[in-house]
Amino acid sequence: MTAGAAVALDALMSSIRVDLDLAESEMQRMLATGTEPVRSLLEHVSRFRGKQLRPALVLVAGKMFGELGRDHHKVAAIVESIHVATLVHDDILDESAMRRGVETVNRKVGCETAVLLGDYLFATAFKEAALLKSRFPACDLSGVVAVVCTGEIQQVHNRNNMDLSEEIYFEIIERKTAALYAGALRNGAHLSGASQEQAAALARFGTKFGTAFQIVDDILDLTGDEARVGKSLGTDLAKAKMTLPLVRLRDLASPADRTRLEDAIASHDAGRIRPLLVEYGALESARTTADDLVRDAQRELDDLPDVPERTLLQQASEYVLSRDR
Amino acid sequence: MTAGAAVALDALMSSIRVDLDLAESEMQRMLATGTEPVRSLLEHVSRFRGKQLRPALVLVAGKMFGELGRDHHKVAAIVESIHVATLVHDDILDESAMRRGVETVNRKVGCETAVLLGDYLFATAFKEAALLKSRFPACDLSGVVAVVCTGEIQQVHNRNNMDLSEEIYFEIIERKTAALYAGALRNGAHLSGASQEQAAALARFGTKFGTAFQIVDDILDLTGDEARVGKSLGTDLAKAKMTLPLVRLRDLASPADRTRLEDAIASHDAGRIRPLLVEYGALESARTTADDLVRDAQRELDDLPDVPERTLLQQASEYVLSRDR
Repeated sequence: MTAGAAVALDALMSSIRVDLDLAESEMQRMLATGTEPVRSLLEHVSRFRGKQLRPALVLVAGKMFGELGRDHHKVAAIVESIHVATLVHDDILDESAMRRGVETVNRKVGCETAVLLGDYLFATAFKEAALLKSRFPACDLSGVVAVVCTGEIQQVHNRNNMDLSEEIYFEIIERKTAALYAGALRNGAHLSGASQEQAAALARFGTKFGTAFQIVDDILDLTGDEARVGKSLGTDLAKAKMTLPLVRLRDLASPADRTRLEDAIASHDAGRIRPLLVEYGALESARTTADDLVRDAQRELDDLPDVPERTLLQQASEYVLSRDR
Repeated sequence: MTAGAAVALDALMSSIRVDLDLAESEMQRMLATGTEPVRSLLEHVSRFRGKQLRPALVLVAGKMFGELGRDHHKVAAIVESIHVATLVHDDILDESAMRRGVETVNRKVGCETAVLLGDYLFATAFKEAALLKSRFPACDLSGVVAVVCTGEIQQVHNRNNMDLSEEIYFEIIERKTAALYAGALRNGAHLSGASQEQAAALARFGTKFGTAFQIVDDILDLTGDEARVGKSLGTDLAKAKMTLPLVRLRDLASPADRTRLEDAIASHDAGRIRPLLVEYGALESARTTADDLVRDAQRELDDLPDVPERTLLQQASEYVLSRDR
């Protein structure tokens, strides 16, 4: 990560540190249960959690339009629980063994329990949302989850589809990844009384930022260092998922190299793909798109109130471009 | 099915036929989507649906306390969508290939898509619930789903546990099966303005009826005819699930037969278990418990208003004892 982006992200997180801790307490309350093995499994999956970017976005968006209250903390916890549920289910889809350096639920106790634990996390998040004074989060976030699932189903459906268009690629990642970032920001703003236009501008920031985030994720899956990233890599290729670098390479390659690429994808051979990605500049091309999306995202905030959180959010969004895990 | 029970169930369903059709329309509206392959998968899973017992319970409970309105139809559709979601996920857990004579989602398009389609159905049901005027169904039914998942996780956790107590067996099936019957009745009554006591009495009926339903299901899994039942059987044994007939047999058997039973369960050998079940009367013993539960369930309704629906519900509950599929 570049020093500037790291400093900006730290500044963003520091500005809401106390509220992130309060959101964490809400999450522990929400997920408290005495029934084994649910309790110990929830403790295990709490170790999957990383930077807590999604709850942070709820809180920052809320702070742009007023004081934060307990419902912001609850919604941050709800968004994080939804995120953890999708991680637990994603690891089944990807047959991943590791996440953030610990065993996935499917690896630890089997695919069946992973299905059910994800369902439990979704249901608990929806229950918490249904109990809020504002009806907005329950309506909005359940819709977001349906959108996320639709994107994931489309992705599975397009495995081995070498002809996947860029248009469908973007539709898929906007749904499966960006929709929850957008939802986090929209709900945070809404709870603080932002206008519909203001909440929508933050959601557009989230969509573009989230899309850039997923593109970088897709690049890391091809080029990253597994020990550093802390999760199973090469899973996209193992599942014959056409991600942006591969889509770009396919479109740039000579007919002979396109045939080589198709063979390499069919045999999940990353070793033969990497030189082609470099030769045709496909990684650079994907990175440039991520870069453009972050700039676009930043501009979405230009008409919002000129508060410190707005600048922090714009500056911290750079971090996605320089992440190496 | 005995003639009397069949007539009573038909009478119950006929009394709400128009409303069941309206609930069906609400379900189709709720689940309408233009995105493939989600649309065609939802069409496929609509063929899993059977007697529509759960939506019928919402409607009958509602009718006991007043006129049915659109929100009853919506809640009936929500309950049915939740039920279908659990079926889709259950088939992954059981690795079932068939359900009601059609391919399961996991068999048709893989475990991954089955996970996601179930999630989509849950999210869509919760969204519909969140949009209702009454906040009760969203809060209550999300809690019910969490309870269902807890029961299912406990069940998976207790596979191969030959020492499973009856107490835990009943805890598991009350959660995984009976909780949704209870929820259907409680929500239907609540929407019609029933008192908390009245809704709770109906929920207790649902818990006992649902528990009896699951016991009969567990018996059928050991003794049923696959073609007639229309789904994969023997899955409990294949997953080394200790169901009530097996728990009773274990407790009744001589030390030598108990060893034989444990060997047969470990090797999933239904052929060696069936004679033991008959010899020790374990099937009869489990059936008697189901029978007692249905009588108990019927008595829970004694203090409710003496309307035709109450009698229909009491009489129709008999059907569970005589089902052969």
